[in-house]
Amino acid sequence: MSGGSLESQIRRMALTARRAAWQLAVMKTARKNQILRGMGRGLIAGGRTILSANGRDMRRAKQKGIGGALLDRLLLNPKRIREMAEGLFEVARLKDPVGERIAQWTAAQGIKISKVRVPIGVIGIVYEARPNVTADCAGLCLKSGNSVILRGGSEAFDSNRAIFRTLEQAGRSAGMPAGAAQLVQTTDRRAVAILLGQIGLVDLVIPRGGMGLIRRVMEVARVPVIKQTHGVCHTFVDASADLGMAQRIAYNAKVQRPGVCNAMETLLIHRQAAPKFLPALYERYAAAGVELRGDPTVRKILAGRLVQAAQPQDWDTEYLAKVLSIRVVPSLEEAIAHIRRHGSGHSDAIVTRSKRNAERFLAEIDSACVYHNASTRFTDGGQFGLGAEVGVSTDKIHARGPMGLEGLTTYKYLVRGKGQVRAG
Amino acid sequence: MSGGSLESQIRRMALTARRAAWQLAVMKTARKNQILRGMGRGLIAGGRTILSANGRDMRRAKQKGIGGALLDRLLLNPKRIREMAEGLFEVARLKDPVGERIAQWTAAQGIKISKVRVPIGVIGIVYEARPNVTADCAGLCLKSGNSVILRGGSEAFDSNRAIFRTLEQAGRSAGMPAGAAQLVQTTDRRAVAILLGQIGLVDLVIPRGGMGLIRRVMEVARVPVIKQTHGVCHTFVDASADLGMAQRIAYNAKVQRPGVCNAMETLLIHRQAAPKFLPALYERYAAAGVELRGDPTVRKILAGRLVQAAQPQDWDTEYLAKVLSIRVVPSLEEAIAHIRRHGSGHSDAIVTRSKRNAERFLAEIDSACVYHNASTRFTDGGQFGLGAEVGVSTDKIHARGPMGLEGLTTYKYLVRGKGQVRAG
Repeated sequence: MSGGSLESQIRRMALTARRAAWQLAVMKTARKNQILRGMGRGLIAGGRTILSANGRDMRRAKQKGIGGALLDRLLLNPKRIREMAEGLFEVARLKDPVGERIAQWTAAQGIKISKVRVPIGVIGIVYEARPNVTADCAGLCLKSGNSVILRGGSEAFDSNRAIFRTLEQAGRSAGMPAGAAQLVQTTDRRAVAILLGQIGLVDLVIPRGGMGLIRRVMEVARVPVIKQTHGVCHTFVDASADLGMAQRIAYNAKVQRPGVCNAMETLLIHRQAAPKFLPALYERYAAAGVELRGDPTVRKILAGRLVQAAQPQDWDTEYLAKVLSIRVVPSLEEAIAHIRRHGSGHSDAIVTRSKRNAERFLAEIDSACVYHNASTRFTDGGQFGLGAEVGVSTDKIHARGPMGLEGLTTYKYLVRGKGQVRAG
Repeated sequence: MSGGSLESQIRRMALTARRAAWQLAVMKTARKNQILRGMGRGLIAGGRTILSANGRDMRRAKQKGIGGALLDRLLLNPKRIREMAEGLFEVARLKDPVGERIAQWTAAQGIKISKVRVPIGVIGIVYEARPNVTADCAGLCLKSGNSVILRGGSEAFDSNRAIFRTLEQAGRSAGMPAGAAQLVQTTDRRAVAILLGQIGLVDLVIPRGGMGLIRRVMEVARVPVIKQTHGVCHTFVDASADLGMAQRIAYNAKVQRPGVCNAMETLLIHRQAAPKFLPALYERYAAAGVELRGDPTVRKILAGRLVQAAQPQDWDTEYLAKVLSIRVVPSLEEAIAHIRRHGSGHSDAIVTRSKRNAERFLAEIDSACVYHNASTRFTDGGQFGLGAEVGVSTDKIHARGPMGLEGLTTYKYLVRGKGQVRAG
């Protein structure tokens, strides 16, 4: 970044992005795919440079005392670079949503209306440690005809810059318009607020990161935002559940990958099922190293075994770890009431043999994804068959649940007439 | 409003609305229609009370020196009350969008996914003088299964309260849940900011009013907002236009109802068409009392006739009056560039015989509604055949253009399995 204040620099980026968006909106699918494949090949060819930039980020992070999961998210290696490239090749293979005719009809005085899918325009992505977001989002935005302004976390500053330069160079030589993808190359935190204030130039910002980031974005945003807050996902084991199935589902939802948003955080069990269900499940969880936090009934049933007493805040906590809160409820109604009170509207499941209870749960739980007899872990663009995803929206506006290419589009109405004017 | 701080009062309203939303989400269509018809009949029966409340608002407004268009917007009379009631009867006749199965497919490991249309939840409506918005929005939100918190302008305080009480009483006795519709009954301006800060309780706020209101809402909103900013609508008369048709369209778009958002504010004319087109059109506009503001070429062509010199700000102005800015452009490209620079993304039209130019204009102009050979005045839920509208969105997120019942819904994914768990 050079020249002028941060405000004017960001504004200039937004204006450049707007101009690029006009070109991207009418770009042929074949050309977009060519650019995406060029970017993917560029990543593989530029792997050494990217890894050496990532090495600098990793050293800085270690000096700062950053460790564990965060350090792992930051790390790049040849396998991860290949995955980034393959992600771009996959996006090239996805169906282009732009231009789809959503509906068509004849309206007042014979005017002919087509509702067609078009890009949103200029999209801002504000994200944290994972440098792969740089490539993923550049690819998804390009395929959906949007220009993108990327703003990564300071920990991944060098990695993001190296990835971005590679993508830009490869993209430009395959025909990408100038400004179609831009990276905010400063660690100055004010840049986010300025980007979020570009009314009329930035059409949408998608934050990708922890609740701290999401809250900051919500505080300062003046432009539309679609966000994924958190996933406090529930599984309710009903009185009539097939207990073997319930065990497999509850185990999978907690253990298969505990650190992600669609993992279960709270298990609710109907009191008729609990005495038989809990002891067997306990053994499996204990073997997997899951820490349990139960209500008094749970602790009574599992007396003599290691179960912490659940505290009030447990019911609202996204552990993202091998920790599970468990509650016994007297009825389906109470399970629904619990989820309404404590859920985050992400993914919730019922395990039951009762079709009636299943349909009630599906109708009355207002979450992005509601499951009957399946693990909440399926909430994912790939598992749903939607292709690569930008994230899982817990908003109700525009895109809800796994947000793929279609979530990055809007529509416009084309009205064709023969000289019609409005009467009256 | 009584008891506790304004903050806690609004929060209580939001919590009540949330509970009501759960009931509305699963309410049968027939019951919702019954409530709507009951409300309509209630308005007719309660007309005298509403008119006397409106009389108080009108007297207060006149004392404050309010006049003209604003006073007319505030005024209720028996005809307008009947129209409000008929609006509710019409909404009762509209198709219920809730429960529609948008898509259905089988995904990973045979899980069956249905994407179904559901209400958004709790909607806030912040509006200005027109008291009919109280009934219109209460009806549209109810039909789409949402609970609504209404916040009208202080000028219409008594009218809104009288309308709301009538609706509530009639609605409740037809089975409307408590809290399904609520009115913020204070003129304290802080109420709007508090309502716009109810993260997690209010799912969407729709402001309806002038740019001052919209800007205030954008400044303070922490919850999602869909807005209609303004309509700087263009008509471009191309070189090959049928000039008779162009005249009818340009006249209609400006004169038929100048005070609305889909009226034309700027006329662009290809330089080849201008010399023949402008003098004839001038006579029609002059007869209708339209004030013209032209660029130098326009003023040269219309030399000796009354045309003001357009100032730079004219190209960005929504007159909402019998005023029109006119510019002669050398090409289709320049017309498109002008609209991109100055348009508001609402409605823009091309008049041309060239199919190629028409398709280019339709593709390259990124407005909610883009017209070929028709008047921009058709941008309207009723004219489009979408039924009653909440407004015309100039946002690109969620709902764009005329926003009807479907715009007040979202979707969720219902996933049905047979015990599937995620592999890996």
